Amino acid sequence: MALSTAFTKLFGVRHPIALAPMGGSAGGALAAAVSHGGGLGLLGGGYGERGWLARELPVVAASGRPWGVGFLSWAVEIDAVEQALEYGPRAVMLSFGDPSPFVERIRAAGVALIVQVTDLEETRKAVDLGADVIVAQGTESGGHGARRGRATLPFVPVAVDLAAPVPVLAAGGIADGRGVAAALALGAAGALLGTRFQATAESLVDPATAEAIVRGRGQDTERSGVLDIARGSGWAATNYTARTLGHSYLDRWRGREAELAADLEARRAYQDDVARGEVPPLPVWAGEGIDLVDDLPSAAGLVAALAAQAEDALTRAGRE
Amino acid sequence: MALSTAFTKLFGVRHPIALAPMGGSAGGALAAAVSHGGGLGLLGGGYGERGWLARELPVVAASGRPWGVGFLSWAVEIDAVEQALEYGPRAVMLSFGDPSPFVERIRAAGVALIVQVTDLEETRKAVDLGADVIVAQGTESGGHGARRGRATLPFVPVAVDLAAPVPVLAAGGIADGRGVAAALALGAAGALLGTRFQATAESLVDPATAEAIVRGRGQDTERSGVLDIARGSGWAATNYTARTLGHSYLDRWRGREAELAADLEARRAYQDDVARGEVPPLPVWAGEGIDLVDDLPSAAGLVAALAAQAEDALTRAGRE
Repeated sequence: MALSTAFTKLFGVRHPIALAPMGGSAGGALAAAVSHGGGLGLLGGGYGERGWLARELPVVAASGRPWGVGFLSWAVEIDAVEQALEYGPRAVMLSFGDPSPFVERIRAAGVALIVQVTDLEETRKAVDLGADVIVAQGTESGGHGARRGRATLPFVPVAVDLAAPVPVLAAGGIADGRGVAAALALGAAGALLGTRFQATAESLVDPATAEAIVRGRGQDTERSGVLDIARGSGWAATNYTARTLGHSYLDRWRGREAELAADLEARRAYQDDVARGEVPPLPVWAGEGIDLVDDLPSAAGLVAALAAQAEDALTRAGRE
Repeated sequence: MALSTAFTKLFGVRHPIALAPMGGSAGGALAAAVSHGGGLGLLGGGYGERGWLARELPVVAASGRPWGVGFLSWAVEIDAVEQALEYGPRAVMLSFGDPSPFVERIRAAGVALIVQVTDLEETRKAVDLGADVIVAQGTESGGHGARRGRATLPFVPVAVDLAAPVPVLAAGGIADGRGVAAALALGAAGALLGTRFQATAESLVDPATAEAIVRGRGQDTERSGVLDIARGSGWAATNYTARTLGHSYLDRWRGREAELAADLEARRAYQDDVARGEVPPLPVWAGEGIDLVDDLPSAAGLVAALAAQAEDALTRAGRE
């Protein structure tokens, strides 16, 4: 008996599982594979780079299954959103920053609006904007999230109460079927997973990153703004920091973000270190659920396996 | 149909719910009420203050139900543990620090050993010590916990895998039946709740603290070592910090713990502020689950209500 929720019904998908639209790594092949597997594949539109979108959108659109695309509210321009809408997504997800400039255009296209939130104030705003689905993201998630975030387990039920009857997906720290089951037990209509899907055959990450994720441990991850400042990312001006695996610049600059921001020479040194291959070109974004990631399966098969494990976990819970 | 787990079977209790042995506030009346309600009441033995134990132990022992007592491994002496053992607890729980000096005495008394852990290394050690139950505590918990902690949702399933077949209780951020259900879905054999039980009729907290918990929000809680340093607590020398509600000394000294530790005058000022009533005598320890706490029920009735809500949450999950 499949898991059925307001989310699976809204999109007509088989499993209450969505792919986090990780900028760069959630490309067309990965999003298509998740949709083929019975979840909702969300393309990682990120900043809305037109060339990347032109390459990846046709791939996911060709899946013939419900799919969507995600963008960064603080960075994307409306043109990129419109480019995506031309390919017929079932949903556009907006994360981090003010989603309101894009809402009217998405609604006019008859596409579902998914808004990712990191605290109760953002949750309330997303409800007021008329979001069709809200993603409640906890601080244990990989990649970007609130500087002073909420933990997934206590955050989700409060977001569910606040958003009702709008369905909520839980995100952050979920990397196996037990986590999906916990999300449903908390009242969520499904789970959105990032790090788990980074380590799949279809993910757009290089082999070294995939291996780092498979071998990494949750205790080695850390949320910080240091690397965004060092690499001169636009994120540095936002209220969002990133959870990554360990990094020499984290050790060197932890707790001294303002100092690093003011130190032009240190930031040039970072670029030099990247150029010399002494630090990797990008941080390895990873969530605390990484302990549960120890293989590189196909994403389509993974979705079905996660759903089966979630069903099993719910059946066993409290029935020993 | 009641929830049944390795934990409920081990102790012969009705519900997979334990009271966190909060030093000072989890007194005999509260522990007895939780045990009467069908959970496992754990007396908050804390540092092992003999007079407090002499007053509270008879109260919980008179419950006639399975009960236990918790101590701080880094602070308690064996005499206090022996004092508690004389009253016939079913379990002794040891938290924060090295539990090994107490294990033999507890085993010799035929009493179950519960060890609270905050990371995978502590989990492995607890298994090796022969713990009968392991409590996996996430960083969203109220009061003391690891300085650089793990979030409950991703930590629990990894601890469960590592500890198997030793049963694990989930702790941190759980304050309603949905959280208890999530703990079971993650593979835990139950949940240990603190903050939720602080706000009950039987808790040993003053009315101002109870009201602060009922009104407080998760986003107002913060994990920090500042207040332990300011108040000259022995905790300041440990690897554990405390999650509390907001406090003027947190705002003043956030990120400057070493400086505060070296500033005798500032620490004297704290004592003066307490004496003048400008800051409360104790911080308000509270977890991120506090958003879900909005009443002051009887603890016995609360246990049954939490269990019923957990069953309901598991029945509804994925069955819309």
